[in-house]
Amino acid sequence: MNNFTPLKNVKIESPFWKTYTDIAKDKIIPYQWLAINDKIPDTAPSHAIRNFRIAAGLEEGDFGGMVFQDSDVAKWLEAVAYRLTIDPDAELEKTADEVIDLIGQAQEEDGYLNTYFQIKAPDKKFTNLLDCHELYCAGHMTEAAVAYYEATGKDKLLKIMCRYIDLIDSKIGPEEGKIKGYPGHPEIELALVKLYRATGEKRYLKLCEFMVNERGTDPNYFDQELEARNHIGFWGGGYQRGVDRKYCQAHKPIRQQTEAVGHSVRAGYLYTGCADLAAETGDESLKRAMEVLWDNITEKQMYITGGVGAHVYGEAFSFNYHLPNDTVYAETCAQISMVFFAQKMLRMDVNRKYSDVMERLIYNGTISGMALDGRHFFYTNPLSMWEEETRKCPRVGHIHSKRPGWFGCACCPPNLARMITSLGNYIYSSDENTVYTHLYIGGEADIPVGDKTVHLTQTGNYPWSGEIGFTLSEGKYAFAFRIPGWARSFAVKANGSAVSPEIRKGYAYINRQWKDGDTVELTLPMPVELVEANPLAREDAGKAAIMRGPVVYCLESADNGDVLSAIRLTGEFETYADDSLFEGAVNIRASAMRRRTWTSSELYRTYKPGDEEPCTVTAIPYAFWTNREDSREMTVWVRV
Amino acid sequence: MNNFTPLKNVKIESPFWKTYTDIAKDKIIPYQWLAINDKIPDTAPSHAIRNFRIAAGLEEGDFGGMVFQDSDVAKWLEAVAYRLTIDPDAELEKTADEVIDLIGQAQEEDGYLNTYFQIKAPDKKFTNLLDCHELYCAGHMTEAAVAYYEATGKDKLLKIMCRYIDLIDSKIGPEEGKIKGYPGHPEIELALVKLYRATGEKRYLKLCEFMVNERGTDPNYFDQELEARNHIGFWGGGYQRGVDRKYCQAHKPIRQQTEAVGHSVRAGYLYTGCADLAAETGDESLKRAMEVLWDNITEKQMYITGGVGAHVYGEAFSFNYHLPNDTVYAETCAQISMVFFAQKMLRMDVNRKYSDVMERLIYNGTISGMALDGRHFFYTNPLSMWEEETRKCPRVGHIHSKRPGWFGCACCPPNLARMITSLGNYIYSSDENTVYTHLYIGGEADIPVGDKTVHLTQTGNYPWSGEIGFTLSEGKYAFAFRIPGWARSFAVKANGSAVSPEIRKGYAYINRQWKDGDTVELTLPMPVELVEANPLAREDAGKAAIMRGPVVYCLESADNGDVLSAIRLTGEFETYADDSLFEGAVNIRASAMRRRTWTSSELYRTYKPGDEEPCTVTAIPYAFWTNREDSREMTVWVRV
Repeated sequence: MNNFTPLKNVKIESPFWKTYTDIAKDKIIPYQWLAINDKIPDTAPSHAIRNFRIAAGLEEGDFGGMVFQDSDVAKWLEAVAYRLTIDPDAELEKTADEVIDLIGQAQEEDGYLNTYFQIKAPDKKFTNLLDCHELYCAGHMTEAAVAYYEATGKDKLLKIMCRYIDLIDSKIGPEEGKIKGYPGHPEIELALVKLYRATGEKRYLKLCEFMVNERGTDPNYFDQELEARNHIGFWGGGYQRGVDRKYCQAHKPIRQQTEAVGHSVRAGYLYTGCADLAAETGDESLKRAMEVLWDNITEKQMYITGGVGAHVYGEAFSFNYHLPNDTVYAETCAQISMVFFAQKMLRMDVNRKYSDVMERLIYNGTISGMALDGRHFFYTNPLSMWEEETRKCPRVGHIHSKRPGWFGCACCPPNLARMITSLGNYIYSSDENTVYTHLYIGGEADIPVGDKTVHLTQTGNYPWSGEIGFTLSEGKYAFAFRIPGWARSFAVKANGSAVSPEIRKGYAYINRQWKDGDTVELTLPMPVELVEANPLAREDAGKAAIMRGPVVYCLESADNGDVLSAIRLTGEFETYADDSLFEGAVNIRASAMRRRTWTSSELYRTYKPGDEEPCTVTAIPYAFWTNREDSREMTVWVRV
Repeated sequence: MNNFTPLKNVKIESPFWKTYTDIAKDKIIPYQWLAINDKIPDTAPSHAIRNFRIAAGLEEGDFGGMVFQDSDVAKWLEAVAYRLTIDPDAELEKTADEVIDLIGQAQEEDGYLNTYFQIKAPDKKFTNLLDCHELYCAGHMTEAAVAYYEATGKDKLLKIMCRYIDLIDSKIGPEEGKIKGYPGHPEIELALVKLYRATGEKRYLKLCEFMVNERGTDPNYFDQELEARNHIGFWGGGYQRGVDRKYCQAHKPIRQQTEAVGHSVRAGYLYTGCADLAAETGDESLKRAMEVLWDNITEKQMYITGGVGAHVYGEAFSFNYHLPNDTVYAETCAQISMVFFAQKMLRMDVNRKYSDVMERLIYNGTISGMALDGRHFFYTNPLSMWEEETRKCPRVGHIHSKRPGWFGCACCPPNLARMITSLGNYIYSSDENTVYTHLYIGGEADIPVGDKTVHLTQTGNYPWSGEIGFTLSEGKYAFAFRIPGWARSFAVKANGSAVSPEIRKGYAYINRQWKDGDTVELTLPMPVELVEANPLAREDAGKAAIMRGPVVYCLESADNGDVLSAIRLTGEFETYADDSLFEGAVNIRASAMRRRTWTSSELYRTYKPGDEEPCTVTAIPYAFWTNREDSREMTVWVRV
């Protein structure tokens, strides 16, 4: 097992990520602060901070917002923690401390802490784990507590959450009289493993293990809970058809689950927690189960952008190879959860199948959820869009042609903020004698290897360029780095001389006695590539996607006019720098043929194979789509 | 204006249509008789006949079935009338007479006749024209009355319906104190024109004209009616967002409507009534409005099968060029209504744009609604189907991979029965000096031309063969016949000698003094054609459909294995006779390339253009799809 180098040891200097980090720091976090304090004009109030004030007895009033509104405060605090780690800010820290004080005031004598139940339904605590996100909120706040502790060394929130988790541990578990339950929305599992690592308290790991192992066993806990509630659900109406066990991955014991099903964010968080638990406990059967689910998702249910959860219905996984590009959901949060999952798997097995997907996710299907102004966000990340259809056809009623401002249920923007600000956590890892580089993101890092610390500098202009440089510090260790699956070739130099490193599971290993200032240069040629989908993915038949390095491109009507389906790529490409949307971005000009517009009003006619004319089309990085006014159509998959 | 030769003057001997007529006669009509009498085991009772017995005071009980259940009896009677016309059956006629007696007994003193309101809500008559199908049921029963009168000369039902329509006429109209209303589901309009023609009573035409002209004017009648009902709808719940005026084509006055919108069967019936009204009144502006709507549908909203109504949402038209092949609705009844509409337009303007579509409809998107066993029926007629998706993805939850048995809301099967049994009404028409042949359906006909009657015999094996023969009887008249739009060439002989007839609007005219036994031979070469859609129809880009003559073909997994999207047609075809599904059918073998199955488990890889292998695929007529067990996939559009 290897350990990821913590955020505080990693400094990111990549121009690409600086843009996003600045957005997260300067726009999302401050904006969310206003939001949770009900200070955004012309927007329904969040109530999130106010709920804590009411629970603390500082204000009169009723609970407001979603049942999981507390998690918005948690996600804000977690993002703040990462932000303070990478860029300290005394005033922001003071604000966060005050919020933590408030949380402390809201906590009950026995440790209980959930403003919905405290204000609204104090007699209903722990009676509806299925619907009410009680454990979900506890999980998010635990993540915030651990992050804030690691960022600042301050343990106030950590202690608050230990008290609350201790209470939960006294209510849920295998012992006589305890609830044999687990959350309807997994999240606390991954948080419990983090809390265990931060505190060393094994009970937290045990509690996680109980929830993971109990899930989906017979008799089904959610059925029993529902029975005890007289079949009344929280979200209006009853459960006439019973609990949708697949929706919350409670249809089978976790080790028997072989296909990812149900709500994709629930799935991603659950698998992340399970993988991390397996890593900490060495549970081989759980590890194997996560490998099977990982392979199922990435080999059968993942869009080329990294998007997961093809169904709008239940924001859920669909079925193997069912990857419609227009009606897709692919929630931003689901993709973020897959980044988490990838990292946990990578910790157990240095295999590029995990890091390649992590890279696919961070450059495509996650950041596509955010406009380049940092103020508009997508839940859904379609791979094709026809603006008129989004307005007129309910099957794509969930697809927007432009990113809306912020949401009543605002899960994706703060999730993006925490992913971006904590990106340093995902780049390097190490074990006794090896330093691993998983992502090519320029900057510096101090990486513990055995009892030493390696100081490493990474340079380059990734993802736009495949020239990557490393400077290492003295020591005897293996330096390992990923050769991306997208690379058709690569070249490595150590101290200026070509070397042929050993390759294992897609990682290059150079094991030697390094001197301070030793260099490693990796060249990954980045031609434009046409990529095709497995023929079993029927929606992509006859089409290809344009990629360069890890970046997936798309065509937009803003560059190419309407009726993108009339375009057929002919396979010649030219790259060019274009700063107009994103500084330093590389766009692509592609040779193509376009079906001629018909002069007659006919809808059908005898097929004329040659009725097309040559043209040049422009492809831009998918993540940057619909940042211009004129976005009536977009497509990732283009006819070939 | 020309007049269609009535059913009683036309005898169909086409082998193709004999199969369907036999199904209608021997299976649908008897089965529906059992159904409306609640005699189908293991099926929810229809209540349709029982409702009339209760209304007649012959039985105690409550109303059962849909609010429009009476129309099932009407449609059965109408189909019986056509069946008696083409094939008299004394016993069936006696049964129908008894049903008519029962209907007479159920009719109230003042003429009122709708069992739902009589049994269930006698104080609510004419208060909810929007939802309750009161005028719709009256329309269907009027159609039955006219058909039965024309079939048998018996006017009992005709008189019943005149009395009821007289009552409606006393309630609805422009005069002070009358309701300024029109039906939520159009249908009565077309029936009123038929009733006018059968009786000569101009009031019926006037009533139709009022309903047509009032529709969609301000203030909106449905809004007023809803207001008067305190915003309570019939179908559960209120109308919080008001009336969906587009759904029922009441969003604008009819002459200002330029795009077909809303529920497609409502639209088809409305346009049919309007066109027939325009024909009878010579109303040029109404005729022009119908031309505009016809062109909109056929040039921008019709599937290659003739299917209309792309939306499952509201079973409605979508928007121009939005023709998804998998999530499509394309209700069988909507296609049937387009046959009616085509005929009315053709009456005013002998132009093949109407009869070509009529032909497209009868050979493809209408009869596709029926299994070849005559016992299973589709509402929806998709152009592509993936069985696993229909089970697992709600966006195609309305699509079945197999035709179900019969429906609780059983509109399509009896509608097919009446279309098929009355097909003789659509083949020929005539005016003072011309005989028109619109459809190539073998048989004999007596066609009035001026004050004479032309006896005509048509032979051939259409749609499988394009060799068509006519034998004419003596007289000076023009013989006109359609040169189908699909025909790339044609040849005509009169009495064995090649002739070059004048062509007007797609019809060939031979004007001469004919002698008894004169022959005309039309040869329409029927090569297999690849047909493409206008590039604006984005869903069909890069694909073509296989057609031969008027018949649209499809690929099924039963012949071609799964993953039909892997197939690319290369343009060579061979036809062969295959009786296995349908006697005399012509199937097609096509040369193709098929993407190779991947040996790796990858989901994406660098595009390999040549990774396909030659194969031969089998195409069968679309109308015959999923008549075999093994129908996991089907597609009309195939990559080229």
